[in-house]
Amino acid sequence: MNQALLRHPRFVSLEGGEGAGKTTAINAIRDLLRAQGHEVVLTREPGGTPLAERIRGLVLTPDAEIAGEPLSPEAELLLVFAARAQHVRQVIRPALQRGAFVVSDRFTDSSYAYQGAGRGLDPQWIADLEKRAVGLQPGLTLLLDVDVAVGRARANGRDLWPDRIETEQDDFFQRVRAQFRQRAQNDPQRFSLIDASQDQAGVAAQVRGAVSHWLEQERVHE
Amino acid sequence: MNQALLRHPRFVSLEGGEGAGKTTAINAIRDLLRAQGHEVVLTREPGGTPLAERIRGLVLTPDAEIAGEPLSPEAELLLVFAARAQHVRQVIRPALQRGAFVVSDRFTDSSYAYQGAGRGLDPQWIADLEKRAVGLQPGLTLLLDVDVAVGRARANGRDLWPDRIETEQDDFFQRVRAQFRQRAQNDPQRFSLIDASQDQAGVAAQVRGAVSHWLEQERVHE
Ligand SMILES: Nc1ncnc2c1ncn2[C@@H]1O[C@H](COP(=O)(O)OP(=O)(O)O)[C@@H](O)[C@H]1O
Ligand SMILES: Nc1ncnc2c1ncn2[C@@H]1O[C@H](COP(=O)(O)OP(=O)(O)O)[C@@H](O)[C@H]1O
Ligand SMILES: [Mg+2]
Ligand SMILES: [Mg+2]
Repeated sequence: MNQALLRHPRFVSLEGGEGAGKTTAINAIRDLLRAQGHEVVLTREPGGTPLAERIRGLVLTPDAEIAGEPLSPEAELLLVFAARAQHVRQVIRPALQRGAFVVSDRFTDSSYAYQGAGRGLDPQWIADLEKRAVGLQPGLTLLLDVDVAVGRARANGRDLWPDRIETEQDDFFQRVRAQFRQRAQNDPQRFSLIDASQDQAGVAAQVRGAVSHWLEQERVHE
Repeated sequence: MNQALLRHPRFVSLEGGEGAGKTTAINAIRDLLRAQGHEVVLTREPGGTPLAERIRGLVLTPDAEIAGEPLSPEAELLLVFAARAQHVRQVIRPALQRGAFVVSDRFTDSSYAYQGAGRGLDPQWIADLEKRAVGLQPGLTLLLDVDVAVGRARANGRDLWPDRIETEQDDFFQRVRAQFRQRAQNDPQRFSLIDASQDQAGVAAQVRGAVSHWLEQERVHE
């Protein structure tokens, strides 16, 4: 059983609440890395493989649409990690092994934030699942941090139909944001905190700066 | 977080390999309990709720049918426990709480046998998931034990299209059988070992005998 948790320098994740601008910012990272001649695989969670995307459907479809059956917090956590295990094995590890960069829109930090702080599940359980079913951490995590209300307003402008998690209340998203910030504070080597209240060009510039800085550091270590 | 593991006297599970006769025998239990005036809920795993049945589809559909993507052992385990968490919360606990008997065609012992012994996953992980996501054990587990080849011959007579697990090799099913027998030996208070090599009438008679005996014991304790 693989129970080690390894950081990979070419694995980058984007984290943050709804509407922080993760999906928008990922393109800036792709362009920067490609301009340096790297192969870049962009992916997202929950999902990233055909099977994991099916699991994503079960997690994000509003309860009312699956026979009105509420999804328990425990089942939500296990589904998210089942999808992540597939994602790592089928997509992320093979890409890293052939030398590509992998940039993922969300990864395990989202489980600590949403299923842990949001749903109230034991972070020790999440840490155990991370070791047993994932075994891999990003070398760099960009936390796009923005006021909950601002993010939700952006997401509302984008989505006609909110998914199961987007229908949560403000206090849920406040716990999610606080947990992301806490994790960034506890692990400054991996995290880069981005002020996502700026406009898109400002966020993109900060994201590019963080990635460039990290590439230079990595080069020094090589 | 509920981390206790409670046995419930009105919760009965049927375990055993493919073609042992679980689905056939469950009717004998239902008839016996109903004849005594009890409400009986028959259910099965993986599945038992609309959402859990969707998860069952992901677990049992042959890899080739989901974009040729192999399901990792870790994801298989997590999906099975996600389904079980839903099953316990939506169906089993509510039925037990209103005084009904619940008889389930497979339960957590199948995870120790298939994902543990079969797939080689750490039984400590399974025990942790059992505590964190299930919290409930049957008061009585009937293990229908039969030679692997005999069971497979019966199952082949029944199934036109084998599912993902039925296509495993013999050594997989030998490990599954040995694990079931080991668990029964380690926990004689909960398990009743049924010789499933007999004909259907013989198996049904033994199953009825085991359930009646257990009901009498329970009555003494009340
Ligand atoms: N910095 C920004 N300022 C204003 N709007 C933004 C900014 N970044 C993204 N948006 C817009 O907000 C919405 C949510 O952005 P998105 O990248 O989908 O967020 P996320 O993926 O973090 O939920 C989109 O409509 C997007 O065009
Ligand atoms: N004791 C038995 N002897 C012979 N055939 C049996 C017996 N019990 C069940 N069968 C038949 O074997 C097949 C598998 O039985 P089933 O109850 O579906 O097994 P399981 O649910 O344990 O996989 C069915 O076709 C069933 O009719
Ligand atoms: Mg997005
Ligand atoms: Mg059956």
